[in-house]
Amino acid sequence: MNFKIATLPGDGIGPEIVDQAIKVMKAVGEKYGHSFDFEFAPTGASAIDLVGEPYPDSTHEICMNADAVLFGAIGDPKYDNDPKAKVRPEQGLLKMRKKLGLYANIRPVATFPSLIDKSPLKNDRVEGADFVVVRELTGGIYFGDKGRSEDLTSAFDNCVYTTEEIERILKLAYEYAGKRNKRLTVVDKANVLCTSRLWREIAQKMEKDYPDIETDYMFVDNAAMQLIQWPKKFDVMVTENMFGDILSDEASVITGSLGLLPSASVGLHTSVFEPIHGSYPQAAGKNIANPVATILSAAMLLDALNLLEEGQAVRDAVNASLEANFVTEDISKEAAKSTSEVGDWIAAQV
Amino acid sequence: MNFKIATLPGDGIGPEIVDQAIKVMKAVGEKYGHSFDFEFAPTGASAIDLVGEPYPDSTHEICMNADAVLFGAIGDPKYDNDPKAKVRPEQGLLKMRKKLGLYANIRPVATFPSLIDKSPLKNDRVEGADFVVVRELTGGIYFGDKGRSEDLTSAFDNCVYTTEEIERILKLAYEYAGKRNKRLTVVDKANVLCTSRLWREIAQKMEKDYPDIETDYMFVDNAAMQLIQWPKKFDVMVTENMFGDILSDEASVITGSLGLLPSASVGLHTSVFEPIHGSYPQAAGKNIANPVATILSAAMLLDALNLLEEGQAVRDAVNASLEANFVTEDISKEAAKSTSEVGDWIAAQV
Ligand SMILES: CC(C)[C@H](C(=O)O)[C@@H](O)C(=O)O
Ligand SMILES: CC(C)[C@H](C(=O)O)[C@@H](O)C(=O)O
Repeated sequence: MNFKIATLPGDGIGPEIVDQAIKVMKAVGEKYGHSFDFEFAPTGASAIDLVGEPYPDSTHEICMNADAVLFGAIGDPKYDNDPKAKVRPEQGLLKMRKKLGLYANIRPVATFPSLIDKSPLKNDRVEGADFVVVRELTGGIYFGDKGRSEDLTSAFDNCVYTTEEIERILKLAYEYAGKRNKRLTVVDKANVLCTSRLWREIAQKMEKDYPDIETDYMFVDNAAMQLIQWPKKFDVMVTENMFGDILSDEASVITGSLGLLPSASVGLHTSVFEPIHGSYPQAAGKNIANPVATILSAAMLLDALNLLEEGQAVRDAVNASLEANFVTEDISKEAAKSTSEVGDWIAAQV
Repeated sequence: MNFKIATLPGDGIGPEIVDQAIKVMKAVGEKYGHSFDFEFAPTGASAIDLVGEPYPDSTHEICMNADAVLFGAIGDPKYDNDPKAKVRPEQGLLKMRKKLGLYANIRPVATFPSLIDKSPLKNDRVEGADFVVVRELTGGIYFGDKGRSEDLTSAFDNCVYTTEEIERILKLAYEYAGKRNKRLTVVDKANVLCTSRLWREIAQKMEKDYPDIETDYMFVDNAAMQLIQWPKKFDVMVTENMFGDILSDEASVITGSLGLLPSASVGLHTSVFEPIHGSYPQAAGKNIANPVATILSAAMLLDALNLLEEGQAVRDAVNASLEANFVTEDISKEAAKSTSEVGDWIAAQV
């Protein structure tokens, strides 16, 4: 089969790690008789430098016409400390999410036995943790009205959720839970926020349609604690955009495998696959960044194209590389292989 | 000297633990020749049951006329899963914060050597961690306009911050950092939120007035990760209300000493001292709850009354109880003493 893959390397280490995922997908293509057309398009700070826009229309067109989008990372520190910058790389990300309708960000978090000593948590607390954070990605305070008062002495950000947005993401989360261990934790702040009360009301109704799934409700502050204390008790966690930003990042470090975690953003028009980690500008161009999270994102992409055997082959190859300790310096200073060496190894293994 | 202490035990284990703090303060009074008038007033679910209001005007009057407020905990599960409840215990808390102008919540987080094995983090990651989270407490999304659309198909919560609110809390955080290790981390989401950009703008200006303090800026998602990965690198962290709710709870579990952590909420009219943990309804009336966080909150209260030696005497007595392993069951199942036994021991030690 033939697939069009919109390829958005982005900033920092983005291009290097995306290159490795492409290598691996090409190896998959050869082995299983598929061809992938990788159509490159700019995004993030590099797109601003190129065309003055972090998510140009031309990039959007390519995404809309693709079977899936492979994404690197975006962000450049030159924008972070300039509160007045007019165009920011992150705006491109948000625009992409909105225009592609990427309403659900899915982050599987798992421990890797060989990395358990890297976890900041005590091994017995985290060993075997295996859960998924589902984050609403196109609503809430990210996309509500925002601005300054006329006299500039105050600022505001409005958080809005519609019934439809909430139902859509909860449905996806319930379906995910149904395929896993049948437990769903709905995280909100219903003791303070009106939007959270709407989330909870809808979940409490929907719960009845999924009698085989055990639903529980947790306040976001409590969830932030429970994630660290008892990560093993979660199966699927679902929450709104801002809470999901915080909790999914928190979740990603408890296993010690941040550099390895992939994500999928499921959309109305297409879906985007990208590593959880950022653009890591300090490492850009040095051929030292860990490409595994991006390669595992490519595996999720293959799954989404219904190439399940192919996705599994990629995961197996990644696991083999970890077992062989053929890894980048973030995992083993002693054994340290380069980004491209790890990519080559995994592609060859496939 | 003679002090009026508004005493608000609240719900669940609140009354039992506040009793122990009172015992200890009375012992302090005897030893140092002060007298404390504890004026009791209802709050939370128990106030709703009593007078239909979680923070009655009569309670507010008592607080306004007091030198300080000693607070237990509030919250009752019967309200948690009822998104339509008209009156909630938490509303009392929020009303108290607003009416007393409690704009800064201060939570010192420290490790206790004898409890380090209880920490979910690897001992070497957390040993010696010692930082303070300063949370803005009367602004932001907690207190902005909120509601439902007329057709009930959407809900909103507005987050607003004024320059004045931001300056006030940053000033307090800078002063705290000045008395400690001279490092301040300002946590925001300036890459997405307008309110955060205002925070950052103001902090970047204010930074110049505190040349001896090293300021750094961190996005909230990153802060949620760094807290777990490298808790020792923080000194003072300051952030807005909602982020502070999440991060301060996250921070409170990394040391394994949640049951031991006190807090102060500094106000325009008076200040409130309370444990970080909740009302723990399952344990209510069983005489098993850990009173140490409340006793340490009383120590912060003494500090605030400028009774510094007295505050230190309480902390020393608490440390002695921990060293003697004279503790409640949450700390040692084997040695398990009751709430009141621990209170008696610490009071006697003073
Ligand atoms: C870069 C930023 C806008 C973005 C977000 O907050 O959503 C990032 O943190 C993420 O989680 O993808
Ligand atoms: C009970 C709730 C309203 C409150 C808050 O969110 O502020 C609590 O979580 C806290 O941190 O004191």
